[in-house]
Amino acid sequence: MKKIAILGSTGSIGTQTLDIVAHAPEQFQVTAISGGFNSELIIEQAQRFRPQLVSVATKELADRIAQHVPTGTRVIHGEEGLMAVATESGADILVTALVGSQGLKPTLAAIEAGKHIGLANKETLVSAGHIVTEAAKRKGVALLPVDSEHSAIFQCLNGEKPSQIERITLTASGGSFRDRTRAELKGVTVKEALNHPNWSMGAKITIDSATMVNKGLEVIEAHWLFGLDYDHIDVILHPESVIHSYVEFIDHSVIAQLGNPDMRIPISYALTYPDRIPTPTTRLDLAAIGKLNFREMDYERFPCLRMAFESGRQGGTTPTVYNAANEVAVARFLKGEITFLQIESIIEATLQKHEFYPNPPIELIHEQDQWARQVAAAMTF
Amino acid sequence: MKKIAILGSTGSIGTQTLDIVAHAPEQFQVTAISGGFNSELIIEQAQRFRPQLVSVATKELADRIAQHVPTGTRVIHGEEGLMAVATESGADILVTALVGSQGLKPTLAAIEAGKHIGLANKETLVSAGHIVTEAAKRKGVALLPVDSEHSAIFQCLNGEKPSQIERITLTASGGSFRDRTRAELKGVTVKEALNHPNWSMGAKITIDSATMVNKGLEVIEAHWLFGLDYDHIDVILHPESVIHSYVEFIDHSVIAQLGNPDMRIPISYALTYPDRIPTPTTRLDLAAIGKLNFREMDYERFPCLRMAFESGRQGGTTPTVYNAANEVAVARFLKGEITFLQIESIIEATLQKHEFYPNPPIELIHEQDQWARQVAAAMTF
Repeated sequence: MKKIAILGSTGSIGTQTLDIVAHAPEQFQVTAISGGFNSELIIEQAQRFRPQLVSVATKELADRIAQHVPTGTRVIHGEEGLMAVATESGADILVTALVGSQGLKPTLAAIEAGKHIGLANKETLVSAGHIVTEAAKRKGVALLPVDSEHSAIFQCLNGEKPSQIERITLTASGGSFRDRTRAELKGVTVKEALNHPNWSMGAKITIDSATMVNKGLEVIEAHWLFGLDYDHIDVILHPESVIHSYVEFIDHSVIAQLGNPDMRIPISYALTYPDRIPTPTTRLDLAAIGKLNFREMDYERFPCLRMAFESGRQGGTTPTVYNAANEVAVARFLKGEITFLQIESIIEATLQKHEFYPNPPIELIHEQDQWARQVAAAMTF
Repeated sequence: MKKIAILGSTGSIGTQTLDIVAHAPEQFQVTAISGGFNSELIIEQAQRFRPQLVSVATKELADRIAQHVPTGTRVIHGEEGLMAVATESGADILVTALVGSQGLKPTLAAIEAGKHIGLANKETLVSAGHIVTEAAKRKGVALLPVDSEHSAIFQCLNGEKPSQIERITLTASGGSFRDRTRAELKGVTVKEALNHPNWSMGAKITIDSATMVNKGLEVIEAHWLFGLDYDHIDVILHPESVIHSYVEFIDHSVIAQLGNPDMRIPISYALTYPDRIPTPTTRLDLAAIGKLNFREMDYERFPCLRMAFESGRQGGTTPTVYNAANEVAVARFLKGEITFLQIESIIEATLQKHEFYPNPPIELIHEQDQWARQVAAAMTF
């Protein structure tokens, strides 16, 4: 029986992870979960899965839910709570489904504690890929991708030699506005931006799909996960999100991973790797789908993806700044403070102001992350 | 350096195998080749690759070419020649690129001699799958598929557990007449039938693609190669021949192998497995291709595929009869003796007359093969 801890159990990836667990209760045991402010859902999860640890955002919330969780479940809170969920429950694998850069510290702590990582928090590798991959290697810990694109690449590399990879290609649906020109992006609403054509996901990642920042973060993540330089990472537009990504080898053979857009497949694979188990998902029916479309990526239409490649190539603190500026910009867009196109303006301007540091230690990453957030938050138009 | 013997070196697969060898001369050595009647080409191959053994169809031909081959190359002929090429040259791997059921005996001999098999002669497994797979298992010899579909499945199964396969799906281009109704197949010419939309192949296999017999033989071959029963083997129409086949696993994840339609990719993989080397082929460019199409297989439009599934399910001598009747029928069509649609009539009628034997020894397979050929050759309309 595999013991699982989940950071972010009330979010989209977190709930789907628990769905996989519920579907194979003889295979999994949930030992710790952390949610944010959704006390009703986390109480329900605590009652159903009976973890040792439940962490919530604040002390008030922790006090409030304490009487509703099963006997034997300890309720904790805040950053310390996240650290305890990451390290203290005896889990074999930690699923890091937190949104944003708050996932970095507990992920590193879990790696140091020898836990395998089911990596759904892509900012961890974007901000500190050099530190996280080094630690994982040193501790003999697996970084198991939960993102559909990276899980696809990971599956395609099964039994293959890294030295025989020619390139990997991440597919991009194009997000909510894939059929609009740049001119047509002026004045789009939050509601329109949140309407993703293929995937049902959290708000932040749905906006990131529309700006193509999400694919940019994935490119940087792929660089670290698979040890490939940026010249060997491509992105292609594939509106149906059926081919989740693919690998071309030196013989020009291409291996691709496909499936209906359902995160429970990559989640399940991360939990059971190198095995597979039945999932409560639907079968892919290519004849029913009929057509798969592909278009070359347009880096002028999607400048955030161009900036991600540039940030990744520069390395050092630059991807941290790219990510932090984007997090703030998306939050400001969702609050109605800025327009959709100003998300990319904020990222671009913050990157321009940024003073580059190569090979940063974790403290400097935090510092630059904070700096970028302040700059992005203060930017006016 | 890997030592390679080739049965059928002057055919389509044979020449492409030598193309792969010529592209990586430091990796391969050709130790034996057999051609049929194409003396000019086999002399050229002998001079270029300097094998120990060269076999041709007849004694006359052998005598005629003997003075044109390099010193140290022995020229042999006939069935004995094929057997010597299969077993006597010290090869590590035998590529069986002969057309039709003549490949069976030398393939079995090579397995008994401990040689790995690059299997391009699908009739070997169709007629005697139970014997060939048992012998390969007993001798610890790999059956490495050269067909694009089986190579695709083989590549998709890299690092995976057979018990976690849900089903495999072979893709079918639909052949020369894929967009015609059955009514429109009346009176089609040999020339039209030989005009395959995607692949440049020999005449027999091009006709087999148009009748869908080729896919039927592949289904039976897949049954033996991958140890799957027929309920777990599907066929889908995919006109572009870009996805060469795919595997669905129990978690509903699908792994597919893609590439431009170029047999040198699967040939190279069979020669270098589990490694890959650069091939003189072009890169797959999905954005340039733009669209991949899929349609459900229509077993009424393609009754030869239905008959293949039925023959495979019945097993015993039935697939032998299916294959032998088809070989004769195709030869008769190419000679202008019968119409295109009479190919399937001959197969169907021969199967109906056939007396079924389960689990046949090799002698009975030969006997039934001969019986089916006589019946198919004598059939009049």
